[in-house]
Amino acid sequence: MIEYRNLRIAILGGGSVGAQVASLLLEHGDELASRAGAGLELIGVAVRDLDAKRTPPLPRELLTTDPASLILGADIVIELMGGIEPARTLLLDAINSGADIITANKALLATHGPELFDAAEQVGAQLYYEAAVGGAIPIIRPLRDSLAGDRVKRILGIVNGTTNYILDLMEREGASLEDALAKATELGYAEADPTADIEGYDAAQKVSILASLAFHTNVPLEAVHREGITAVTMEQVESARKAGFVVKLLAICERLTDAETGEDGVSARVYPALIPVTHPLAAVHGANNAVFIEAEAAGDLMFYGAGAGGLQTASAVLGDLVSAARRHVIGGPGVAESNHANLPVLPISSITTRYQITLKVADRPGVLAAIASLFSEHGVSVEALTQSAGLGAIDPDATATLVIGTHEATEHALAATVAALKSSEVVRAVVSVLRVEGL
Amino acid sequence: MIEYRNLRIAILGGGSVGAQVASLLLEHGDELASRAGAGLELIGVAVRDLDAKRTPPLPRELLTTDPASLILGADIVIELMGGIEPARTLLLDAINSGADIITANKALLATHGPELFDAAEQVGAQLYYEAAVGGAIPIIRPLRDSLAGDRVKRILGIVNGTTNYILDLMEREGASLEDALAKATELGYAEADPTADIEGYDAAQKVSILASLAFHTNVPLEAVHREGITAVTMEQVESARKAGFVVKLLAICERLTDAETGEDGVSARVYPALIPVTHPLAAVHGANNAVFIEAEAAGDLMFYGAGAGGLQTASAVLGDLVSAARRHVIGGPGVAESNHANLPVLPISSITTRYQITLKVADRPGVLAAIASLFSEHGVSVEALTQSAGLGAIDPDATATLVIGTHEATEHALAATVAALKSSEVVRAVVSVLRVEGL
Repeated sequence: MIEYRNLRIAILGGGSVGAQVASLLLEHGDELASRAGAGLELIGVAVRDLDAKRTPPLPRELLTTDPASLILGADIVIELMGGIEPARTLLLDAINSGADIITANKALLATHGPELFDAAEQVGAQLYYEAAVGGAIPIIRPLRDSLAGDRVKRILGIVNGTTNYILDLMEREGASLEDALAKATELGYAEADPTADIEGYDAAQKVSILASLAFHTNVPLEAVHREGITAVTMEQVESARKAGFVVKLLAICERLTDAETGEDGVSARVYPALIPVTHPLAAVHGANNAVFIEAEAAGDLMFYGAGAGGLQTASAVLGDLVSAARRHVIGGPGVAESNHANLPVLPISSITTRYQITLKVADRPGVLAAIASLFSEHGVSVEALTQSAGLGAIDPDATATLVIGTHEATEHALAATVAALKSSEVVRAVVSVLRVEGL
Repeated sequence: MIEYRNLRIAILGGGSVGAQVASLLLEHGDELASRAGAGLELIGVAVRDLDAKRTPPLPRELLTTDPASLILGADIVIELMGGIEPARTLLLDAINSGADIITANKALLATHGPELFDAAEQVGAQLYYEAAVGGAIPIIRPLRDSLAGDRVKRILGIVNGTTNYILDLMEREGASLEDALAKATELGYAEADPTADIEGYDAAQKVSILASLAFHTNVPLEAVHREGITAVTMEQVESARKAGFVVKLLAICERLTDAETGEDGVSARVYPALIPVTHPLAAVHGANNAVFIEAEAAGDLMFYGAGAGGLQTASAVLGDLVSAARRHVIGGPGVAESNHANLPVLPISSITTRYQITLKVADRPGVLAAIASLFSEHGVSVEALTQSAGLGAIDPDATATLVIGTHEATEHALAATVAALKSSEVVRAVVSVLRVEGL
């Protein structure tokens, strides 16, 4: 019988993830202890309601409604309450009482990350958050450890399962956005209020965390450019497919040189974009998540898996718990979160990308030339143009559809082009403007 | 100016990976130091030939032909020589002199892993080997750390880029195995002697390493069942495509219950198999690698990227170097490689899987019934049967092609079925027998 040093574990939050983590910890305690090199004693689970039904059920004597007292006796505090307060105050107290922290709280990290990392650095505590992005998919640890000797150039992520499920259903079954959302709600992929998912807030929190880590720079949530999927139409999805693309809600961060000022910095943004069907991210179906990393030496890497779910998130939390326990056994200070690069965070106007623009135009001779010169006047180079009907009809009210793919252009030049298109007398409507990524 | 403790780094081997690692270390030393929390001083690179041309070139004063002396002064030894000796002896000496070890040497780990891990455990040294499997793709660290709180059920890996390139070319361009191999050699994906790749020896080494780690059990190389791709034909690839499958050389390890004895254990094997086109591994093209992990709580995960290349492997080595340096700064003993599960390693006869069997049979009435009863006599249940020509011709020499998909069957039952098919008077030839995985 091996005698381990015993570590005292407190869990804050008894929802689906908290109950799973507690249950796995009780069930597989011996196996986890042998991997961690330390005994892992669950000293309590702080909940709001002692009598709430939990799946899996937890022993009543472990439950408490007093998180503040619970954390005082803990070596490692696992925060699974969600939300900003009281999670923030409790974690700061836990750090200051000498505990290591594990959290899955992306909202808290995206808004108060620096405060928590600073507090942890002051006392030599460590903060683990693998479960905050991509459920059980290892993303934080590969970025922090595996790629520590490399330089990340860009990350393209599908980090929100709800919106990927919706766009995938639109793509594969021709469903409308409304129908796909209703189905997602029915299956429990979308919450009663789906705003955080479909408007891109959830993805923005995650890209703020990924960008901060990948570029060693604090990228605050409010610096993330965010567009949701509510404006995506069946027509866009269909037209994308015909052109060899799929529409995905992408969370993107990259190190780049500002297209206008020449300044080096980091861009972080969330928007629906076209990616080629041959791109590995195009094969990410249903509610799955994937993070595609372009690194200087490692080349292209992709990490794929279920992005959410109580059991999946619990797996990530327990992986962090074993890491935290090993560090406790070894002793000594942890490695502080590194912000040494301290790059400026650039606005969306800094990026250059390709665009696909769909227009309804007057169907008469000379229109193509007028539109082409309008693009070139604004410095946007056209790469491909397809039209659904011949331009040259006699009926002055006839309408043709044009799909225009551009070469790389700045957001500024594109916006000016779109404004000019809108006021052009040959353009009846600007149907869709989508960025193209992954080329 | 931050003052770091200085760590002395020795590199054994000045080939393409060694030269890349040394060059990146010299070039990005400050950045790596800030991430590691320690100065990283390259004290030398042991080479066979001081005058060999290296890409990138290295400063002459760093080169030495005396690895034994070099390691004596090192805190961290990076072994990139390959082969068993002198690498094994040098690493044992380095461990015993107190150094931590980083190696990309899969052959050495697959054959002498336990000896090295034991030696490291004795003195509290740590052994890192992320680069040994999957180039820059983080696989070792996710298995060891991220999934430490989970239980791996099965791993399906495409871990050899050369064979994936060949099979992908056969699939996508209808090339023959010979032509695809010639092309792989021309492009530098295959070596002059391609035996290690195409016969599955390289994949077997890697699955031995993965299985040992994932199942906390020593899985020696000689316990890995190994079949290469040399018997894969264009006809098999075509027939697979028609049935909705692709042929991939899979490295598989799983925890299972022996189909015959009821004993729990680990199976590790390498063979060409069919996987459904909808499986994420089917989208792994060219010389890329991917490892698909099925875990109890995390669900399905996949890690994808370039599996080889000097720069990619260097990225993995530098990631390990930063981890090793951080541990040096923290101090204390490392975490020993865990073999606590100590499961028996089961032979190939223990597994059950599905099969696809292609037969040339006599084209006359009654043949289908004879073949169907032959399968059922041996306890193998037929799931699907397609035939290329009508069975019922009058010409006694006419031949039809049958493709038979089975339900799960044991290797033993399948082997008995195939033996019976071969001696049946209605079967002209057993054209192909392939296992089906990923369902």
